[in-house]
Amino acid sequence: MRKFDWQLRVYYEDTDVGGIVYYANYLKFFERARTECLRATGVNQQQLLSDEGRMFVVKDCAVAYHAPARLDDALRVSVELKKLGRASLEFFQQVWCAERLLASGTIMVACVDAHSLRPAAIPVSVLEKISL
Amino acid sequence: MRKFDWQLRVYYEDTDVGGIVYYANYLKFFERARTECLRATGVNQQQLLSDEGRMFVVKDCAVAYHAPARLDDALRVSVELKKLGRASLEFFQQVWCAERLLASGTIMVACVDAHSLRPAAIPVSVLEKISL
Amino acid sequence: MRKFDWQLRVYYEDTDVGGIVYYANYLKFFERARTECLRATGVNQQQLLSDEGRMFVVKDCAVAYHAPARLDDALRVSVELKKLGRASLEFFQQVWCAERLLASGTIMVACVDAHSLRPAAIPVSVLEKISL
Amino acid sequence: MRKFDWQLRVYYEDTDVGGIVYYANYLKFFERARTECLRATGVNQQQLLSDEGRMFVVKDCAVAYHAPARLDDALRVSVELKKLGRASLEFFQQVWCAERLLASGTIMVACVDAHSLRPAAIPVSVLEKISL
Repeated sequence: MRKFDWQLRVYYEDTDVGGIVYYANYLKFFERARTECLRATGVNQQQLLSDEGRMFVVKDCAVAYHAPARLDDALRVSVELKKLGRASLEFFQQVWCAERLLASGTIMVACVDAHSLRPAAIPVSVLEKISL
Repeated sequence: MRKFDWQLRVYYEDTDVGGIVYYANYLKFFERARTECLRATGVNQQQLLSDEGRMFVVKDCAVAYHAPARLDDALRVSVELKKLGRASLEFFQQVWCAERLLASGTIMVACVDAHSLRPAAIPVSVLEKISL
Repeated sequence: MRKFDWQLRVYYEDTDVGGIVYYANYLKFFERARTECLRATGVNQQQLLSDEGRMFVVKDCAVAYHAPARLDDALRVSVELKKLGRASLEFFQQVWCAERLLASGTIMVACVDAHSLRPAAIPVSVLEKISL
Repeated sequence: MRKFDWQLRVYYEDTDVGGIVYYANYLKFFERARTECLRATGVNQQQLLSDEGRMFVVKDCAVAYHAPARLDDALRVSVELKKLGRASLEFFQQVWCAERLLASGTIMVACVDAHSLRPAAIPVSVLEKISL
């Protein structure tokens, strides 16, 4: 999977009284970019859930906040797949505003059975799309 | 059902760059109070969903914002059941900070089948608890 | 101001355990569309805040939920300016998924002084852009 | 500063279509507990912001998700101050549901000037309260 970029905009909902984007919201931005990255390879998570009873859940994340994003900022969120396991994915992600790096994160995602929430092999159909 | 009050605190997550609580978050506050009001009568929504396949969804809401809530404010959210139908509930709710009214809302909630999302009669077990 | 449409996607963050978009999040969708509508006319809310000390706050909103949005839905949010006052704007907004109407709302927005939060005339520079 | 515990409840707003609490929301839970921990020592962040022009911002966080929280769960969020620097605080936090550990996190918080967002010494009045 090649490096993927997703553009998004900062709205009032993302900010807090400090005048900057609230720290938890970067996890939303990261997840939107991962979702669009998967969608771009042909993986639809709603179908994965309803057709195969599998979903991706985050097991670990680590985020470094370098500089704040602000209202109306146009952000670019990058996605790089670092490791592809049988039942897990490790992503490295960054948030940029123009040439300025705002945040970096490493996110470990596990594929689980949607009912038991136990680890489950990533479906072959998904692996084939991601591996390209 | 008697008038019910629920206390909550404003955190960074609730505020926006304008220095006040973001307007959508009052709907969260209203819903927390409705949930606790139902819980106080003995209705558990997780059980309603898993045991009876029913859930409550909002069909209509109207909110008037009178004065802003701010970081660290201790709020009181009131719940009054105005109408109890076969498959719907109408609530009147207010948000107060000490003696100051911050917001008022009318929320129409429908009971639905959790799979089809079609209107479904409120289970008798719930009606009995709410009607007291 | 002509009718304006904004496209957005439903992500995990927008949904709840009921399998549908959480009711408060439609207010976020409405606000993103209003923000982009203003931006399209040349109004930047960050500048309005920092340069003119004015911001828009919601005074009243009423939302009717017709059908649920779900994970991965591609939504279209419309914005129509219904009334333009000296210090207020009234918008009619809808959320569509393809040809299906999901939600409609009327949102009254007031222009206020960012410090006192008291009503303040909409700056002429903004009026000129919006009135076109 | 002694170990501090904060109780909270999982509402619809916290969950996602996977039936569990959305991963970013644990950062909100952590922050509510840190805020209440500071409040319990006598530190009010709204005053810190308005009176001293200082605020706390998160510089780094790392979260491990062990087991999912669900709708209506009663959670306990712990706060332990691990390091106290001139301009920074490091917290270790956990989320528990009864005897089950759901998530653990390490959060590095910096004290900054609210305007410049540059690192600033933690005010002595705050240090005195935290150090007890």
